[in-house]
Amino acid sequence: MNYCSHCGQPVSFAIPDGDDRPRYLCRSCGTIHYQNPRIVAGTLPVSGSRVLLCRRAIEPRLGYWTLPAGFMENAESTPEAATRETREEACAEVELQGLYTLINLPHINQVFMIFRGELKGDFAAGVESLEVALFEERDIPWQELAFPTVERTLRHYFADRQQQHYPLHISDITMDDRRLFFDLD
Amino acid sequence: MNYCSHCGQPVSFAIPDGDDRPRYLCRSCGTIHYQNPRIVAGTLPVSGSRVLLCRRAIEPRLGYWTLPAGFMENAESTPEAATRETREEACAEVELQGLYTLINLPHINQVFMIFRGELKGDFAAGVESLEVALFEERDIPWQELAFPTVERTLRHYFADRQQQHYPLHISDITMDDRRLFFDLD
Repeated sequence: MNYCSHCGQPVSFAIPDGDDRPRYLCRSCGTIHYQNPRIVAGTLPVSGSRVLLCRRAIEPRLGYWTLPAGFMENAESTPEAATRETREEACAEVELQGLYTLINLPHINQVFMIFRGELKGDFAAGVESLEVALFEERDIPWQELAFPTVERTLRHYFADRQQQHYPLHISDITMDDRRLFFDLD
Repeated sequence: MNYCSHCGQPVSFAIPDGDDRPRYLCRSCGTIHYQNPRIVAGTLPVSGSRVLLCRRAIEPRLGYWTLPAGFMENAESTPEAATRETREEACAEVELQGLYTLINLPHINQVFMIFRGELKGDFAAGVESLEVALFEERDIPWQELAFPTVERTLRHYFADRQQQHYPLHISDITMDDRRLFFDLD
């Protein structure tokens, strides 16, 4: 952020009076520009013993497999965002069965929320997907998953499925988790 | 939003190529300015049979009672945001016991998340609170609660307490809920 989106003058980065952390602030019109984490909402679509994954047609992680998910938009609810993303990326309808993973990603200012869902009817690749397919547990492309959030959600699911009990899992992706997943030094 | 925060030129409000909804976009540097919902995180602090509420020292709803909660910041997790807000508004420490309500407020682009927590030790009014107090169910100031999210969370809690079972409750505040709560037209 270089300029004030309200008045167009250059912004400073400093701690406002009465605050405890630096913000972008405009000394011309007085606006404080708060920046907050974004929600990524999506689903884990299940059809019998198989789960649906999408192969990404866009960067980042083009060509890798992911769950249908994306940034929640203004004026919608979290379940609406999750079902919309599933429709957009997998041309699929799901009957939601509850929030399943909530994963904090403080290093990139995101909160990832996946709802379990029962796949209803057909599916196809949306414009952001190269292909969409159903996988048995043994066929999951573990080495070709797009993000650590996707791997973690799938690991929880296959473990929980043995007990047929799907509690909400809340966790964080740490810098170490990220390094391990992306095989960074 | 009037000006591009990246380059300072005036922005347009139009549907970008390949998108399906209008965004603020800069025809000068090409930046698309996405706007997304914000998370309000907080706690329901419980001490024995009583719950902790804060009387607001700030607008909106100055003088009304609320749960300690506020906007999640970048670089933190949802539990961290909830405990930080509890510390700031009630000078209180809580041991979190799980996500309890997730309430969508699509009309104001917010997602409200309250964790149940066991109050540990003392408490006092933070700078944004006029007073902080513990209430038995029969003493809750139902007519002086600040927001419909607070009322709904407390109603769930006192109902669930009878079964000693506290599942996550996901719901929306609709325009009708809002009108009813604030006694509008």
